[in-house]
Amino acid sequence: MDSAQLLDILGNENRRRILQLLSHKPCYVSEIADRLSVGPKAILDHLDMLERAGLIECSNEQRRKYFHIAGNVQLEVSVSPHLYGVETNSIMISVEEQRRLRQEYSSMALLNLNDELRRLHSLRRELMLAQRSTQARIAELMNLCAEMIDQIISDHLEAEILLALVTGTRRVEMLSEELNIPANKIDKGLHQLKEKGMIIERQKKWYIR
Amino acid sequence: MDSAQLLDILGNENRRRILQLLSHKPCYVSEIADRLSVGPKAILDHLDMLERAGLIECSNEQRRKYFHIAGNVQLEVSVSPHLYGVETNSIMISVEEQRRLRQEYSSMALLNLNDELRRLHSLRRELMLAQRSTQARIAELMNLCAEMIDQIISDHLEAEILLALVTGTRRVEMLSEELNIPANKIDKGLHQLKEKGMIIERQKKWYIR
Repeated sequence: MDSAQLLDILGNENRRRILQLLSHKPCYVSEIADRLSVGPKAILDHLDMLERAGLIECSNEQRRKYFHIAGNVQLEVSVSPHLYGVETNSIMISVEEQRRLRQEYSSMALLNLNDELRRLHSLRRELMLAQRSTQARIAELMNLCAEMIDQIISDHLEAEILLALVTGTRRVEMLSEELNIPANKIDKGLHQLKEKGMIIERQKKWYIR
Repeated sequence: MDSAQLLDILGNENRRRILQLLSHKPCYVSEIADRLSVGPKAILDHLDMLERAGLIECSNEQRRKYFHIAGNVQLEVSVSPHLYGVETNSIMISVEEQRRLRQEYSSMALLNLNDELRRLHSLRRELMLAQRSTQARIAELMNLCAEMIDQIISDHLEAEILLALVTGTRRVEMLSEELNIPANKIDKGLHQLKEKGMIIERQKKWYIR
């Protein structure tokens, strides 16, 4: 699933409520409509969209169509003054790992699984904090780069291209798409920066030097 | 900023494109409309929404209103069969840390900042992978808990309540809101589970035992 599709899906409150509900238990249409106090027609439309995206699936049980969450994804969005990033990852666990986990946990009582879950949740929180502080550093460093570039480059287009290259090497087409600027203008800016000795080209990719 | 508001904002492709554009440089309205090939009226509406949410700010320069990203947030969404979580965090860096970073980096050339950024990005990626594997374990453990509960509890409501309690202790009202089930029904289910010796109450909170 791509990030744009997932964000479009999550941009609707009722779809978010459906996902939350289904994370508690599989439900049939009128049950969802009932619990969320939303008309069944609207629920059906949402379910259709969620199913087409592969986030939910349905199975027949006792003559009823039950919907359950099928997707296993993680979405991460970062918004900072010089940083905008969206990333979606499918979460997968290998069959061997799954078998190993089941063996490890099979003898545990619910209470122990509960403790193990708590441990994993706190590990997850620690990782999140570490990631947040890394992102704060990245954002601050990008601010510094933007200031530095503003001091050495007066042309707006050149400054914009240079800042984009700071975050990683790029081809002309990538820069053009990312900055919404025609490729010929980007190309001109790149060659001006090259003449100033600020960047170099290697195999059609541009690098800070 | 709450997660629902941020997801509503990010649910629109043009708003995402505006944020991406502004992450490259501050822009004025007609510049954004021009670059994204979207009418200025629509752009203004989006900018208004982004500004009210605190994600962007504007400043006057050369008689023009320039918009730039002001927010510094990170959003994380997890969707798995028995797990749905949304979390938004403000990313902050303390004034001392900011000063320290600037001192540390002030003597560096752009190329070195570039290297440092690359290092931070790869650290961020490693943390992300660790987090993904933790989430995979949590998701798998939740599957196991759900199966285990299905085997020992036949009543649907009781099973649903018990699974919710596995993820953490809860009050009646929290369960009612989360599961979209009236509080009196939840209360009945909780007492049935208590009689079966599966959960206990301590200071109005319910725990697995």
